[in-house]
Amino acid sequence: MHKGQGLVNDVFKPKHIKKLTGNTGIGHVRYTTQGANDSDLAQPFTTSYPFGLAMVHNGNVINFRDVARLLHEKYHVLPKTTNDLELIMYTFASELRVKDLDRLSVVDIFDAVETTQELVKGAYATVTIIAGHGLLAFTDPLGIRPLVMGRRDTPDGPVYAFASESTCFDYLDFEFVEDVGPGQAVFIDNDFKVHYKNINALPKAFCVFEQIYFAREDSTIHGRLVARERVRLGKILARKVADAGLKPDMVIDVPSSGYFSASGLAEAIDVPYRRALVKNNHMGRSFIVPTQAGREDVVKKKLNPIRAFVEGKKIAVVDDSIVRGTTSRRIVRLLREAGATEVYFISSAPPIVSPCIYGIDMAMSTELIAANYSEEEICRYIEADKVIYQDLNDLQDLFAEERGHGGSCFACFTGKYPTGEVTHYLRHIQEERQSHRPAKAAASLSAKAPAPTEH
Amino acid sequence: MHKGQGLVNDVFKPKHIKKLTGNTGIGHVRYTTQGANDSDLAQPFTTSYPFGLAMVHNGNVINFRDVARLLHEKYHVLPKTTNDLELIMYTFASELRVKDLDRLSVVDIFDAVETTQELVKGAYATVTIIAGHGLLAFTDPLGIRPLVMGRRDTPDGPVYAFASESTCFDYLDFEFVEDVGPGQAVFIDNDFKVHYKNINALPKAFCVFEQIYFAREDSTIHGRLVARERVRLGKILARKVADAGLKPDMVIDVPSSGYFSASGLAEAIDVPYRRALVKNNHMGRSFIVPTQAGREDVVKKKLNPIRAFVEGKKIAVVDDSIVRGTTSRRIVRLLREAGATEVYFISSAPPIVSPCIYGIDMAMSTELIAANYSEEEICRYIEADKVIYQDLNDLQDLFAEERGHGGSCFACFTGKYPTGEVTHYLRHIQEERQSHRPAKAAASLSAKAPAPTEH
Amino acid sequence: MHKGQGLVNDVFKPKHIKKLTGNTGIGHVRYTTQGANDSDLAQPFTTSYPFGLAMVHNGNVINFRDVARLLHEKYHVLPKTTNDLELIMYTFASELRVKDLDRLSVVDIFDAVETTQELVKGAYATVTIIAGHGLLAFTDPLGIRPLVMGRRDTPDGPVYAFASESTCFDYLDFEFVEDVGPGQAVFIDNDFKVHYKNINALPKAFCVFEQIYFAREDSTIHGRLVARERVRLGKILARKVADAGLKPDMVIDVPSSGYFSASGLAEAIDVPYRRALVKNNHMGRSFIVPTQAGREDVVKKKLNPIRAFVEGKKIAVVDDSIVRGTTSRRIVRLLREAGATEVYFISSAPPIVSPCIYGIDMAMSTELIAANYSEEEICRYIEADKVIYQDLNDLQDLFAEERGHGGSCFACFTGKYPTGEVTHYLRHIQEERQSHRPAKAAASLSAKAPAPTEH
Amino acid sequence: MHKGQGLVNDVFKPKHIKKLTGNTGIGHVRYTTQGANDSDLAQPFTTSYPFGLAMVHNGNVINFRDVARLLHEKYHVLPKTTNDLELIMYTFASELRVKDLDRLSVVDIFDAVETTQELVKGAYATVTIIAGHGLLAFTDPLGIRPLVMGRRDTPDGPVYAFASESTCFDYLDFEFVEDVGPGQAVFIDNDFKVHYKNINALPKAFCVFEQIYFAREDSTIHGRLVARERVRLGKILARKVADAGLKPDMVIDVPSSGYFSASGLAEAIDVPYRRALVKNNHMGRSFIVPTQAGREDVVKKKLNPIRAFVEGKKIAVVDDSIVRGTTSRRIVRLLREAGATEVYFISSAPPIVSPCIYGIDMAMSTELIAANYSEEEICRYIEADKVIYQDLNDLQDLFAEERGHGGSCFACFTGKYPTGEVTHYLRHIQEERQSHRPAKAAASLSAKAPAPTEH
Repeated sequence: MHKGQGLVNDVFKPKHIKKLTGNTGIGHVRYTTQGANDSDLAQPFTTSYPFGLAMVHNGNVINFRDVARLLHEKYHVLPKTTNDLELIMYTFASELRVKDLDRLSVVDIFDAVETTQELVKGAYATVTIIAGHGLLAFTDPLGIRPLVMGRRDTPDGPVYAFASESTCFDYLDFEFVEDVGPGQAVFIDNDFKVHYKNINALPKAFCVFEQIYFAREDSTIHGRLVARERVRLGKILARKVADAGLKPDMVIDVPSSGYFSASGLAEAIDVPYRRALVKNNHMGRSFIVPTQAGREDVVKKKLNPIRAFVEGKKIAVVDDSIVRGTTSRRIVRLLREAGATEVYFISSAPPIVSPCIYGIDMAMSTELIAANYSEEEICRYIEADKVIYQDLNDLQDLFAEERGHGGSCFACFTGKYPTGEVTHYLRHIQEERQSHRPAKAAASLSAKAPAPTEH
Repeated sequence: MHKGQGLVNDVFKPKHIKKLTGNTGIGHVRYTTQGANDSDLAQPFTTSYPFGLAMVHNGNVINFRDVARLLHEKYHVLPKTTNDLELIMYTFASELRVKDLDRLSVVDIFDAVETTQELVKGAYATVTIIAGHGLLAFTDPLGIRPLVMGRRDTPDGPVYAFASESTCFDYLDFEFVEDVGPGQAVFIDNDFKVHYKNINALPKAFCVFEQIYFAREDSTIHGRLVARERVRLGKILARKVADAGLKPDMVIDVPSSGYFSASGLAEAIDVPYRRALVKNNHMGRSFIVPTQAGREDVVKKKLNPIRAFVEGKKIAVVDDSIVRGTTSRRIVRLLREAGATEVYFISSAPPIVSPCIYGIDMAMSTELIAANYSEEEICRYIEADKVIYQDLNDLQDLFAEERGHGGSCFACFTGKYPTGEVTHYLRHIQEERQSHRPAKAAASLSAKAPAPTEH
Repeated sequence: MHKGQGLVNDVFKPKHIKKLTGNTGIGHVRYTTQGANDSDLAQPFTTSYPFGLAMVHNGNVINFRDVARLLHEKYHVLPKTTNDLELIMYTFASELRVKDLDRLSVVDIFDAVETTQELVKGAYATVTIIAGHGLLAFTDPLGIRPLVMGRRDTPDGPVYAFASESTCFDYLDFEFVEDVGPGQAVFIDNDFKVHYKNINALPKAFCVFEQIYFAREDSTIHGRLVARERVRLGKILARKVADAGLKPDMVIDVPSSGYFSASGLAEAIDVPYRRALVKNNHMGRSFIVPTQAGREDVVKKKLNPIRAFVEGKKIAVVDDSIVRGTTSRRIVRLLREAGATEVYFISSAPPIVSPCIYGIDMAMSTELIAANYSEEEICRYIEADKVIYQDLNDLQDLFAEERGHGGSCFACFTGKYPTGEVTHYLRHIQEERQSHRPAKAAASLSAKAPAPTEH
Repeated sequence: MHKGQGLVNDVFKPKHIKKLTGNTGIGHVRYTTQGANDSDLAQPFTTSYPFGLAMVHNGNVINFRDVARLLHEKYHVLPKTTNDLELIMYTFASELRVKDLDRLSVVDIFDAVETTQELVKGAYATVTIIAGHGLLAFTDPLGIRPLVMGRRDTPDGPVYAFASESTCFDYLDFEFVEDVGPGQAVFIDNDFKVHYKNINALPKAFCVFEQIYFAREDSTIHGRLVARERVRLGKILARKVADAGLKPDMVIDVPSSGYFSASGLAEAIDVPYRRALVKNNHMGRSFIVPTQAGREDVVKKKLNPIRAFVEGKKIAVVDDSIVRGTTSRRIVRLLREAGATEVYFISSAPPIVSPCIYGIDMAMSTELIAANYSEEEICRYIEADKVIYQDLNDLQDLFAEERGHGGSCFACFTGKYPTGEVTHYLRHIQEERQSHRPAKAAASLSAKAPAPTEH
């Protein structure tokens, strides 16, 4: 096992790769926010008993207190960290060890998955090595986070891989086989035989924000190319732009996540698209941004508008979403300072009104501008001439199940969480985040919050 | 003085900034290739005598052996490193110290610049603090590398800055004043009074490769926006595309330097532009790429084609230039594997036939594919259906002096070096590079070199 | 848990200490040889199941292959490392988990210790936290390595500590209670109640080399002060010095482990003791010493003889032991170069003829000079005028059980290993070490080995 | 040039040594206190003009403000750091550059030394490479700090070395030639010819504290072995011990600097010497000791008394000196806790009443216990039964010039500084140190200061 901090290529050197033996491997990349980059939390997590397990996951457990108590009281397990992956791993390990370990069967493994899925609530897409037995992949019953299976044929027969996104199969010359989940388990045994079971499958609730923002544009989800879906999101927005009577001279994107929607919109309203915000790729990731003012300053340093393209024009600027509103405001200001006569801010997502509790680190309710203010107030706050949001119905229509997509989770736009009642958990994370934030920064945030009556 | 390795924001922390006092500062970012990142070579270089000098530069000295000998024999100076900046600094310092140091005048300073420009051959854009006196900027007589002056008005009067590119003035709220050079010196004295002198000015020979590739697209050079010039480079290419009888279904760019030319070409030939190669921004910079095969592999890992956009189409892919041909070949292959029926490779630069000796780290003559092979051979080598190069006359016409550009250096396209006879220096760097390259890699290079008869 | 490389005070900072909560803690210092300082091997080792165990040990397991196989096949455990502590911990954990974990009793714990002691062969003194239950200390059945128990009375009742040496109780204001072992287990439950059990006690075989060299001189072992025992070792040597007809002018020590024996000898033969070899304490520990010649050079750099004290004198130099003979030879040479007329080399240990397999990293049989050569040959090799070894009978008499010492392990002087047949293990470590040693160094060793006929 | 932090062997690796070419080298070890270990201050310091100079020194400049002003105003030099070596180097360099650099003679070099010695006040023993010319050594006019010259004969003729202490010649197989100084300069030219000149020689004032504590015991100073002088210091103390009517049962030393004086005293009063305080050599050097209480705690952790030797005895404990009194008090307490019935604290130095301004980092006047309290008060404060100080007259007699020693500096015992009036400088360092010390620590110091009326 080898772990480290930094980019993958800085951590895993050829000398590490050379040491690898055996026929099964597992890896993980964890994005950590400033200050919390403790390599103890780097995945995989492992346990020596039973068999030797090594597990990775993507997602977020929401009943971790219950699971921790259960592990302690029923299973006599004391996890070493507070990481939710440990909870999943030890729940699974505990269920496994009551089996007949001398004669472990695939049924036993799927049984242990079943109990794990019943006990652990939240979103999780996991892959586990069971030493001496094989490689196991399973998700939560709703299949909230992505997990895909790939395959490559070799002279010795097929080999398999699991990943969060299909795009990595392109790099590795694997072919995409299928999505895993919801509630599904796939086990590749040591003879490379594949075993499937749909265990606790509930109606799928795949994160729609992956489609809008998080997934790579060259990924394929449920058979659909993400880039193309984003072009569609842009095209759909044309109606709302027209309804609002806007006639922009140019459509631009907030680089780089807004590009495909921007080009879709540009085509649909027959207005030229042009890159007019230049991104500075060489900003260090460790830049300390404790205050709202500092964060705006970073936006300025990361993006430079090209005055010659913007000056004297009505600009429609397309971003994937509006979260706190502060970045959006900074972009509007940058464009105005560069001479734009009007600035229309177009969000390819609908208003975000509820925090994500399934692993996308957005913000708390109190920070989400659309959770607290009307569209007009938001428009005034971000100092745009007009704000256009994606229509929630249009979005739900585009990603409707009957169009071939699995069912989607729209919780951040609707507040309806597919895992059921989550009030308790929401209160917990609210408290958690406040206790980790210095009082001063919190004060400065509220000072910066939009005050509708002022505008 | 504070120096370090890594991104600027990782090296310069608020605690360093807080320590700064005084009214003059100087900084430098140095891009180093793998293995040579010795922080002793980080600029500024300083000397305590006379006055305290701190100097930075951009460029490359080509008669460094002569200058080193002169420093040792005539000036009794022993530079600590082999960096060419030290040669410039000590030549200038040595000339300064023969003046009456108790009554140093601006004339004395410009005198020292004059001798320095006469003794030191090559390309250099320099900025120097003369402690207790002021801030000096000067370039080589041809003004090969960029150097711009900015200004900000404050309640206490104007303050000034020098930089390689105007774009940084945007970030700092300075306004662009003018280009410095060729052979010009600007001195800001301690009362913020500005002194100019054209000293050894020869006909300007500004690096045209800055316009094509190296400069940021949002920079303004000689009053022209780089992005717009690149759009023009793309538009001009339309004629050659038409002459070749090509009818692409889509124009795409090699991200991210090819975008503006690609969109210019797309507009001129009325074919849609689309982003179809996705760049992986998270590749570590330290990835070791000792062999040609390895380098191709990196291209594959850095770029992923979007099959759904490319499949079944005739693709015109625009890059800024073709250097060794290996990257171009990999891109063509990627596009074919993604289903493109035809691939036309468009270079917004003309064929590169001679190495740059003025600070752009391109390659040796033996590695430059256009120095050794015909267009047809190159087309076969990179496996394209057609290669279109920018026409040298068109390029020279676009950047002609009468169009408001200063005179340009086209040496990499013509082999005519504006500093005169450089055979000796070219032989030196050829030897230098070969001695630093393992024999095996060299062998693998020649094995990969295009063999016209094979195709 | 916090681990790190370096001195204790460099690894454990006040900020770490402040974070500690709870009423039980455990720590470990591991001395690693050059190149093997992997912090993954730093103790304690932990496992989350059952209960949460954290274990440290001192010693060496000699049937690790058998234990590893047993863990894998019978207990379905896959240790993460090759460290022998993991074998002990998982054997104990595996035995514990078959108990009724809801109602774990002290009897259960002692049962698990019993099986562990039966399965794991070798020397080990261990301390284990059983989370939620208490603190457990136990040793191997022979009590080869030291383990002591201390106690401090507080207003809330007594608290306890275990350590390798009593001297650390002096620093912590604990008082020494008793030695633990052989085969004994002590369990301090969460109410600070102490439970004892003699489990697999065999006749004690405490490492006599701790007495001679390894233990700190201010430690008390079996109620005897180590420093005083070493003075006695020196006094006993007087007889052999007299028998050899030696009349040294001065007794000196090899600093700093030879001091107490040297002063004992000096008193017994009524010759002045003086410090005449000055030790350089500032030598880095990472000095690379791959060859025998290099190792001698280090001795020279570490020790400087004071010529003014040595010149023209017959010197008796006392060291704790002679291992390879090379250090001894270097010391003899240093003293001769400083003008000593005669040099008598006195070893307070008898000839070392067999390697230690219980945790003291001495050398292989092939390297032990006394395993291969006679006293006369050794004397010639180290270039002394006379070599005096401690008499084995005298040593055994001094540390005889009836004198209040527990029984001792004299294996390195006799080749009789108290754990029984160890031929297989000895062959294993011989192979192990040879495979880690470059062929050249091995060759140079043999070249340097004493060639009796030459002298 | 190669610099680094850590022990010499950790910084200078074989790979660095291999790179060395030429016939002259220079090195330096700098001991820095916590927090100030900036490698920018590591010596040698260098300047490229004239010739290339590289200089190291040992000592302390006391008129650095005057020298800095002179460098700036007269010589137009701006040193990069605040290190006093830079002042010496640039004064020397400035004087050198007014010579005819094309025909530099030894007379020119000694001229520049002369002016440097006149301008720079304080203690300094320096060695300088003058590139292309040779190696220069010179001291301040009083020769306060040690500087010795060594020589080794080789087949190609003699080679030379300079060092602070003769002991390093032992390690390098050089032989000691002579002490350098006071005010002397030695120049080894490139033909290995040696040139001497006594330039600004004043009556020698060699630091007597080197003899008592700082120098290594195996060094020879002015032809006398340091260890032997320390034995003499111990013997002289016998008279004062007798006068005080003390009859100790045992003499012990504070390891390791007190050993030779302790053994001298033991012999003189015919009482056994024994090592009874065990030093813990494995304490990290970075242990943070901000408060007086913390410092006492460290003494306890560093030294452990051997109870069995001390218990029930009257102990005379010998240390080199008493500075603040806190360490002494802790040692007395340790001995009492270990059962000593009486503790006599013997200082081989007289009372220290004035701070050293010539490079030994002792303490400020306010911290020196003997500067503020009587012997009786000190005895009560350190809780000894008796304090015996070396008699100043005895010390001065022992190191009198007529005994073959050069003249000595006794300033720390007398307050008479050989460089003349230093009130201004003393006030400066007092302020300097107070500004670097947190207010709280200062408060805690005064709270711990001995309050005579209390006892």
